[in-house]
Amino acid sequence: MALRHLTSINDLTNEEIERIFLLAEDFLEDLGDRDLPARIGRSVDACAGAVMATVFYEPSTRTRLSFESAMCRLGGKVISSADPAASSTAKGETLADTARIVSAYADVIVLRHPLEGAARLAAQYSTVPVINGGDGAHEHPTQALCDLFTIQREKGALQNLNVALFGDLKNSRTIHSLAYALARFGANLLLMPAPGMELPGSVEHRLHGEFDYAPLNLGGNLPDGVTKVYGLNDAVVNSAIDVLYLTRFQKERWTDTKRHYPVVNRELVAAPCFRQSLVMHALPRAGELDPAFDSDPRAAYFRQASYGVPIRMALISLLLNHGAGGSLERFVGGFRATARSTLHKSGTLCSNFNCISHVEGRVHRERLAIKPERPRCLYCDHEILQSPGE
Amino acid sequence: MALRHLTSINDLTNEEIERIFLLAEDFLEDLGDRDLPARIGRSVDACAGAVMATVFYEPSTRTRLSFESAMCRLGGKVISSADPAASSTAKGETLADTARIVSAYADVIVLRHPLEGAARLAAQYSTVPVINGGDGAHEHPTQALCDLFTIQREKGALQNLNVALFGDLKNSRTIHSLAYALARFGANLLLMPAPGMELPGSVEHRLHGEFDYAPLNLGGNLPDGVTKVYGLNDAVVNSAIDVLYLTRFQKERWTDTKRHYPVVNRELVAAPCFRQSLVMHALPRAGELDPAFDSDPRAAYFRQASYGVPIRMALISLLLNHGAGGSLERFVGGFRATARSTLHKSGTLCSNFNCISHVEGRVHRERLAIKPERPRCLYCDHEILQSPGE
Amino acid sequence: MALRHLTSINDLTNEEIERIFLLAEDFLEDLGDRDLPARIGRSVDACAGAVMATVFYEPSTRTRLSFESAMCRLGGKVISSADPAASSTAKGETLADTARIVSAYADVIVLRHPLEGAARLAAQYSTVPVINGGDGAHEHPTQALCDLFTIQREKGALQNLNVALFGDLKNSRTIHSLAYALARFGANLLLMPAPGMELPGSVEHRLHGEFDYAPLNLGGNLPDGVTKVYGLNDAVVNSAIDVLYLTRFQKERWTDTKRHYPVVNRELVAAPCFRQSLVMHALPRAGELDPAFDSDPRAAYFRQASYGVPIRMALISLLLNHGAGGSLERFVGGFRATARSTLHKSGTLCSNFNCISHVEGRVHRERLAIKPERPRCLYCDHEILQSPGE
Repeated sequence: MALRHLTSINDLTNEEIERIFLLAEDFLEDLGDRDLPARIGRSVDACAGAVMATVFYEPSTRTRLSFESAMCRLGGKVISSADPAASSTAKGETLADTARIVSAYADVIVLRHPLEGAARLAAQYSTVPVINGGDGAHEHPTQALCDLFTIQREKGALQNLNVALFGDLKNSRTIHSLAYALARFGANLLLMPAPGMELPGSVEHRLHGEFDYAPLNLGGNLPDGVTKVYGLNDAVVNSAIDVLYLTRFQKERWTDTKRHYPVVNRELVAAPCFRQSLVMHALPRAGELDPAFDSDPRAAYFRQASYGVPIRMALISLLLNHGAGGSLERFVGGFRATARSTLHKSGTLCSNFNCISHVEGRVHRERLAIKPERPRCLYCDHEILQSPGE
Repeated sequence: MALRHLTSINDLTNEEIERIFLLAEDFLEDLGDRDLPARIGRSVDACAGAVMATVFYEPSTRTRLSFESAMCRLGGKVISSADPAASSTAKGETLADTARIVSAYADVIVLRHPLEGAARLAAQYSTVPVINGGDGAHEHPTQALCDLFTIQREKGALQNLNVALFGDLKNSRTIHSLAYALARFGANLLLMPAPGMELPGSVEHRLHGEFDYAPLNLGGNLPDGVTKVYGLNDAVVNSAIDVLYLTRFQKERWTDTKRHYPVVNRELVAAPCFRQSLVMHALPRAGELDPAFDSDPRAAYFRQASYGVPIRMALISLLLNHGAGGSLERFVGGFRATARSTLHKSGTLCSNFNCISHVEGRVHRERLAIKPERPRCLYCDHEILQSPGE
Repeated sequence: MALRHLTSINDLTNEEIERIFLLAEDFLEDLGDRDLPARIGRSVDACAGAVMATVFYEPSTRTRLSFESAMCRLGGKVISSADPAASSTAKGETLADTARIVSAYADVIVLRHPLEGAARLAAQYSTVPVINGGDGAHEHPTQALCDLFTIQREKGALQNLNVALFGDLKNSRTIHSLAYALARFGANLLLMPAPGMELPGSVEHRLHGEFDYAPLNLGGNLPDGVTKVYGLNDAVVNSAIDVLYLTRFQKERWTDTKRHYPVVNRELVAAPCFRQSLVMHALPRAGELDPAFDSDPRAAYFRQASYGVPIRMALISLLLNHGAGGSLERFVGGFRATARSTLHKSGTLCSNFNCISHVEGRVHRERLAIKPERPRCLYCDHEILQSPGE
């Protein structure tokens, strides 16, 4: 039975994502609504006796706590290493060694790491499932699952929806994962970047090359600020925005002193095209989303956050019960299997200097391998610009 | 069913405090004494399936660990964010947003925060009960509950007891909470301040204005160092000290280079008036309480610390079962209800610069509201000195 | 019933160590192999309802996580204080007070501390069992248990084995604990120190004085780098190395700029004497052990790490059930009992400046006592060089 990991949203098929959503709905019902007395004793036993390790090399409150809450609600237990300075890494240990050791202590590992591709490297060495809790600017697949679930639950479906991506489209790992996932489910993407923070060319290239997405003609009634619309060639784009998805303003990345970062507030969403819009944000926010809007029924971000626990419950319970019958049987083929078969010693060094392969590659004396059929790094998915050794 | 919080000792009626004490006695019996073999398996199931979040923005070992131990003994589970630097706050998140998000992950939140009134602000936004684990110099209500419980359990009652408050009466949040609580139960307060560390005028004012306490005549046999005695007007103060309550010496606040901070040791408590005194201390201590006294039966501070777990078990289990019948039904009226009805936009800014309202008030674009009938800040209870807008 | 602690490997008799190993084998079987579906629900209930506190004053990932995983697998719960800066120690609390307080919250305490003898001082004040998770350069007894278990499990026995100790024999607390333990079980010790990092004279002295170990004649076929062989006088040392035990390279302690720290790699272990050698390492490693060797069946270090959980499960469950019948009844006599009877006020100050007695001794106004029959410090086991007061 092949081990299953979640290092990228693309480790899951569309059918598997839908199975996760169905199970999450069950858990939402099991946990009950927020009426307190009804909550007591509402955890389930799906993972009783199991232990999760959260290994976080970067600050996080909500991702770590929501994973830990999910494991508690499943009847399992949690061990945690959340202080990078207090870890064996401070003694010079490689991530490969840490993954091997921690997989002797736990039944599933959740990893956050500043380097891209870190989750895949850990998955290569772990003997238990590894879940990517964010690896540099690469992927944050469980955030993408929460986002998709919120849209599907509140809009009924994903196909043909108009989803506006607003703000910093350049640096947000959440936006990149979400764009691919929306493309796989047939939603149209309306790009509303902050000036100088456009979606990277490599992401656009991949939307085109892998998901058959192309720029569509802009309709005359689209809101100001939409610079491009991507969709399937036969998609019909009307002017109503179904989802307005904001990214967090990262002050240190904003160098345009003449202009302010765009803000979403009551005035902006008063335009007719936003009348039925879900307003979403992965949070935390830092000024780009006015709290005065919080009481508006279109404000979906706190509901979006609250789905984090049932979605992660569903994911953990399916990964841990994989192979015991009925769970993630139809998985496309985990990273491990793929990686093993395509690893070759005379590969090319990844051109992304934030890729884990530049650190651990040296330690393990393996140069980076690539998937022969697609010139992208096996760990961080970055396009290989030069491949002198091929 | 209104949500119940514990942000101040005054959120609880005397009857509710006594109900907590009764339940804590039950838990003490359930857990057994310290004989180890008998301890195994002695937890209870009152909160099985429930999840507590401890969110600590300030260092703490004993408060956090005793809350977490209490939840474990109740059969519940714990998620924790105890490293301020690793939190979403480092990314600029408001406490209001953190409270909303964490209340989607947990059934009860314990908060420690450096700003006064923080617990009340969190309670305003949380959808689950918030327990104040210490907010700046404002309140530390569960410490006050442990202190009261210790006195009642070891002295049989609280009314008419002579309680001497010793040391730094100026800066200790524990002393302020305890003084109000003792006044509500009719104990006499004998003030024994270190030089320059007298009880603040605002606390004396409130003892007088809200609890009908007045300075009493000093009896001739009172110990040296007693500067004032507060009690109900008809109280009879004899010369026997029932409780000697010490505060921790905070070196950075002691500027009197000519004198030493007063120390409690065997010599001091050899005086006749201390013959039956319980000696109490919230701990940790730092030189003001001689370890040579530890083996004296009057030394109650380690027993006082050990009551932290059963008291917190009782509190958590009553808060979580509130509304399920039989628990905190007769609560005077939580902060939420009160706050909502008295919030008005054109309020007065709090004159306490350590009040949470100066940070979050700006973010939420609401100026501070006050309770019209009593000119005190809604968050930190600080007296409003100037109210230009009224 | 005397309370049992584990502050030193010498707190356990050989028979007790073997009982721990038998129970660990049971737990290994209970937990099953690493096939995931079979793992779910495989925890046991030996410590259901019990709470463990991990109190770590120094960075650690693997020791803390393996203890916490062990407690989870036993059905118990964990509270943790792993950030020294966030602890009451930052407020000036003594370890004695911390031990007393935490023992009111938990049923067993695991302590890591930078000062030697810290675990013994904590055990003196705790009302629950204290387990030493590493105290300065003094001892790390649970690591020694894991090491011994690995050797016995994979080699069938300990007596008469040839165990080569390789690398930094001077500064490693693990090596010191392991050397005594191996001597107690009759293994021969082959010293292969890095230049300038020989085994301390005091350890050699103790091997001789307490365990009747003497330097043996070196056989002609021993590998290069063996400087001494210790064994029982009648031991027969052949040239086959049964175990090659490496220590971590600590860069800051290596001052020999002319030479490199010795490295274990495929070339080194190709020598005939290493043909059947288990290669062991407590990990983390930092360059002294080539990852290219990882796939060799003689590489035992990841299996060694994975035994950490069942060994600690066995230890915790025996300590917590001690006195309930059938557990550690035949214990030689815990530290507490011994210590109490030999403490005398007019003792000698320990000459080891990393000993806890130099900090806490002053606070408690007791000068260091020594065991009269053996001039070693009661806390850190360091030899007393001068004893002017005797």
